[in-house]
Amino acid sequence: MTSLQKIKPRSNRRDKEAMHTHQAGRPIRLTVWNEGEHEVLDESVRAIYPDGMHSVIANGIKRQLGGAVEVRIALLDQAEHGLTEEVLDNTDVLTWWGHRSHDKVDGRIVERVHDRVLGGMGLVVLHSGHASKIFTRMMGTSGNLIWRNDGERELVWSVNPNHPIAHGVPNPLIIERQEMYGEPFGIPEPDELVFISSFDGGEVFRSGCVFHRGNGRIFYFSPGDQEYPVYHHPDVQRVLANAVQWATSPGRSEEHRHCPTYPRNWFLENPSAVRPASAGAVTD
Amino acid sequence: MTSLQKIKPRSNRRDKEAMHTHQAGRPIRLTVWNEGEHEVLDESVRAIYPDGMHSVIANGIKRQLGGAVEVRIALLDQAEHGLTEEVLDNTDVLTWWGHRSHDKVDGRIVERVHDRVLGGMGLVVLHSGHASKIFTRMMGTSGNLIWRNDGERELVWSVNPNHPIAHGVPNPLIIERQEMYGEPFGIPEPDELVFISSFDGGEVFRSGCVFHRGNGRIFYFSPGDQEYPVYHHPDVQRVLANAVQWATSPGRSEEHRHCPTYPRNWFLENPSAVRPASAGAVTD
Amino acid sequence: MTSLQKIKPRSNRRDKEAMHTHQAGRPIRLTVWNEGEHEVLDESVRAIYPDGMHSVIANGIKRQLGGAVEVRIALLDQAEHGLTEEVLDNTDVLTWWGHRSHDKVDGRIVERVHDRVLGGMGLVVLHSGHASKIFTRMMGTSGNLIWRNDGERELVWSVNPNHPIAHGVPNPLIIERQEMYGEPFGIPEPDELVFISSFDGGEVFRSGCVFHRGNGRIFYFSPGDQEYPVYHHPDVQRVLANAVQWATSPGRSEEHRHCPTYPRNWFLENPSAVRPASAGAVTD
Amino acid sequence: MTSLQKIKPRSNRRDKEAMHTHQAGRPIRLTVWNEGEHEVLDESVRAIYPDGMHSVIANGIKRQLGGAVEVRIALLDQAEHGLTEEVLDNTDVLTWWGHRSHDKVDGRIVERVHDRVLGGMGLVVLHSGHASKIFTRMMGTSGNLIWRNDGERELVWSVNPNHPIAHGVPNPLIIERQEMYGEPFGIPEPDELVFISSFDGGEVFRSGCVFHRGNGRIFYFSPGDQEYPVYHHPDVQRVLANAVQWATSPGRSEEHRHCPTYPRNWFLENPSAVRPASAGAVTD
Repeated sequence: MTSLQKIKPRSNRRDKEAMHTHQAGRPIRLTVWNEGEHEVLDESVRAIYPDGMHSVIANGIKRQLGGAVEVRIALLDQAEHGLTEEVLDNTDVLTWWGHRSHDKVDGRIVERVHDRVLGGMGLVVLHSGHASKIFTRMMGTSGNLIWRNDGERELVWSVNPNHPIAHGVPNPLIIERQEMYGEPFGIPEPDELVFISSFDGGEVFRSGCVFHRGNGRIFYFSPGDQEYPVYHHPDVQRVLANAVQWATSPGRSEEHRHCPTYPRNWFLENPSAVRPASAGAVTD
Repeated sequence: MTSLQKIKPRSNRRDKEAMHTHQAGRPIRLTVWNEGEHEVLDESVRAIYPDGMHSVIANGIKRQLGGAVEVRIALLDQAEHGLTEEVLDNTDVLTWWGHRSHDKVDGRIVERVHDRVLGGMGLVVLHSGHASKIFTRMMGTSGNLIWRNDGERELVWSVNPNHPIAHGVPNPLIIERQEMYGEPFGIPEPDELVFISSFDGGEVFRSGCVFHRGNGRIFYFSPGDQEYPVYHHPDVQRVLANAVQWATSPGRSEEHRHCPTYPRNWFLENPSAVRPASAGAVTD
Repeated sequence: MTSLQKIKPRSNRRDKEAMHTHQAGRPIRLTVWNEGEHEVLDESVRAIYPDGMHSVIANGIKRQLGGAVEVRIALLDQAEHGLTEEVLDNTDVLTWWGHRSHDKVDGRIVERVHDRVLGGMGLVVLHSGHASKIFTRMMGTSGNLIWRNDGERELVWSVNPNHPIAHGVPNPLIIERQEMYGEPFGIPEPDELVFISSFDGGEVFRSGCVFHRGNGRIFYFSPGDQEYPVYHHPDVQRVLANAVQWATSPGRSEEHRHCPTYPRNWFLENPSAVRPASAGAVTD
Repeated sequence: MTSLQKIKPRSNRRDKEAMHTHQAGRPIRLTVWNEGEHEVLDESVRAIYPDGMHSVIANGIKRQLGGAVEVRIALLDQAEHGLTEEVLDNTDVLTWWGHRSHDKVDGRIVERVHDRVLGGMGLVVLHSGHASKIFTRMMGTSGNLIWRNDGERELVWSVNPNHPIAHGVPNPLIIERQEMYGEPFGIPEPDELVFISSFDGGEVFRSGCVFHRGNGRIFYFSPGDQEYPVYHHPDVQRVLANAVQWATSPGRSEEHRHCPTYPRNWFLENPSAVRPASAGAVTD
């Protein structure tokens, strides 16, 4: 670029308050998102989750975290899938369960959630969410895997037992009956690998994976098929609660939206200096 | 899933030949993609790159690799941006330079390239390609950064001097005049960090970043603004040639497209065993 | 092994209380270790740090963390370098500054500290500590770098601005005069890269690096030469305080000392089951 | 430092020839190291490996690589454990198998091998080598794990099927009977995770791990207990051969031994400029 663009003013000193809102002791604002179709369509699923998987997930986390969390439910069939700008403005961490209707999720909502995660909202993707639009959008990969539904025992091993998400979780965590998910799993190498599962049939799977994207923390956790009562399992609830706490960022930012230009020495402290203001457009 | 899906037959034994096609001594099939607008619109750019940046990039790599590479050019204004299925069928590595017209790139072509990279095609993204659709699609992040066009000296330091991409490259590589790109850079943590640059103004940038996605190898290299003769620099050409060699995968695969189901013990060698065949749909 | 060894009993259920001692609100127990020779021998250093670098480091962290931290000082010339078993029993995080007398540090104390870090004690290694016995022992690499003492301005850029260690730290953090440390830096690829510095002379350095080893969290931070008042800098103090908080593990463990053998199905919950007991020797 | 030290002359331009010695077509010089005690002491092991495990390992690799490799054997009970300076001068990659006598390995030889790995020699650590002096020295961690010798089937799954070490290897690789190694495994997070194993008993293990240390490439591969004929397995031999090829560095360096100081602008090309010479001591 040969002409200076208008850029957004920016200080090199972060607003400490803005970056530490949670330290004030406010509860984590959790939104539990659910596709919510299996519970309606499949009697076998309804028997396990009569009030929807979201209820069991939400209550399980509340049981673990008590007043440290406030939970909201959002569902596919709500307006904007329950994920309005206002809801997301008031969401610190979003959990995502979807399976049979990934393609019904509006691409605009996906982009909205994606933007929020880059800005610092936590995202916990569950089980068949490996193939959801939001997960594959965040990863840039297929999210594919091999699978078999044969009611196998899954052993969830921690390879990183001191990770906050593994705290208080037995090693191994034992799930009596589950769908098998196996490698290769189409993800980028996780920034931190927390859990690896094995199944009766001998397959293995990276079942607990941490990813950092922008200011957002993402955790993928594979146990949780709709045909088994996995989210009733206290140790699974513990993992979810740990993940929600861990994924809570101390602050939010919109920096990822901008590609600003700065003159030389812009970072020298001189608050009265006039800096060109930007519309944040990508104009490098 | 309670009923078995039709799945694609699969052996657990990879086809060794298919995975080692390059070992046979065939040249690397390189496609150099260029937006190609600045060279037409801006006299200052035309003065540096009268035959287009793609020519200098292509010739620089050929100078380094000789008969070990065959180069094809593809341009934004060609049909399908020059990236037809047939071209991609015959491309081992694709380099990408774009800047002012990222939004003119057809989303279907982006998805096509994305699919090929996951399948094993190498991708070398250059300079302002940090904001291209294909790069942000692969990364899942913004690709944003801070910048300034002030003709500063860029020093490109190798923090991983034994990486194949750094071989034969001076440390530091010195570029007399360049646009400044600065942190924070909106990317996932690179799988391998090869280069870090500093600029006269004091900013730093992760200027050489390796990412593995699916079977594909991706390298982002930031030097190369259109207003400076960066791609004429022999050491920069060396980096590009190294990157092209490094990004060449020994094989290609379509595995990332599928999410197959297998019965227990599918992996036991018994070629005559009948396995359910799959359409590859995501039906876990 | 064909005969079963005696092994230590082990439950697969972690002791939740033991893993969350800090949640109880107890202050972090910090031990600030200093070689403490420059302040005695060099008048120029004494002028900057009349009570020793350790005092300024300790007070700076206390200023940031208040009652959330309790600080103890340990010095090279004390018995066992001030790092007795009892002191380490009561240390959550250890900071390390040494330079001219790395070789005076007793190898047995190095092994003791190493063992504690693997067990969960945090370690913050400062500046010339890059060549200390404890740092190179933890890393397995040389810790070497290039350097120049020429009073250059160092700009410390965050490439991971939402990392807890970067919270509230200006980007860039500006240090008016410092020794230059430059790449290549002989470390393993950091598990998380937080800061990259540039210097007036153009060199760059990975100046803030996170490593996970066993249950321990390690942070290396390069600013802090004895000839400049770096530890008086409020933003540097903020980094140190953040690092101390971040490096505090919720629990401690001795698991890393053992290589136990277990019979099949040892993990099935049956507290009364007799398991073979082990001396923890490496007898696989 | 306030006075300039004598430093070693250094060019910022690498010697391309020195960095590409292998491209000249010379065979890889492999040294296979073996403790060699079980084969003498245990009849059951002798029955499987009458000429020592090293013979089967060496021949297996030769079978895969043919004239592309030259193999030398080194044994614990030889002078300097067969690892003289001259042998290491002529070794591109070293494989390491030890188990019952790790403590007999002379610390000076360990340091010698460590130094060579940092300088660019490849290292492939096998099975019980997880607890060897050289592996734990390179890692900085315990190398500990859980284990059970019960003749279980091990399935070795590739989670990174396009990694050079996984080429041509079935996924899963099936080993009918093996000792179990289980998590948690006391290693740093691998730079690349290639294989994860499961066992009949349900345990999992990160069985194929890549680490970069200095200029050296390290691969740890866990299958291979002395009581089972694992190294006779053609697919295991394929993994070893791939690892040896992958671990071969194009060049060697002694840079990791030095911590030199340079004046400002040392990197500007001026071959006749007099630079201070260094003894390479750590004097930053």
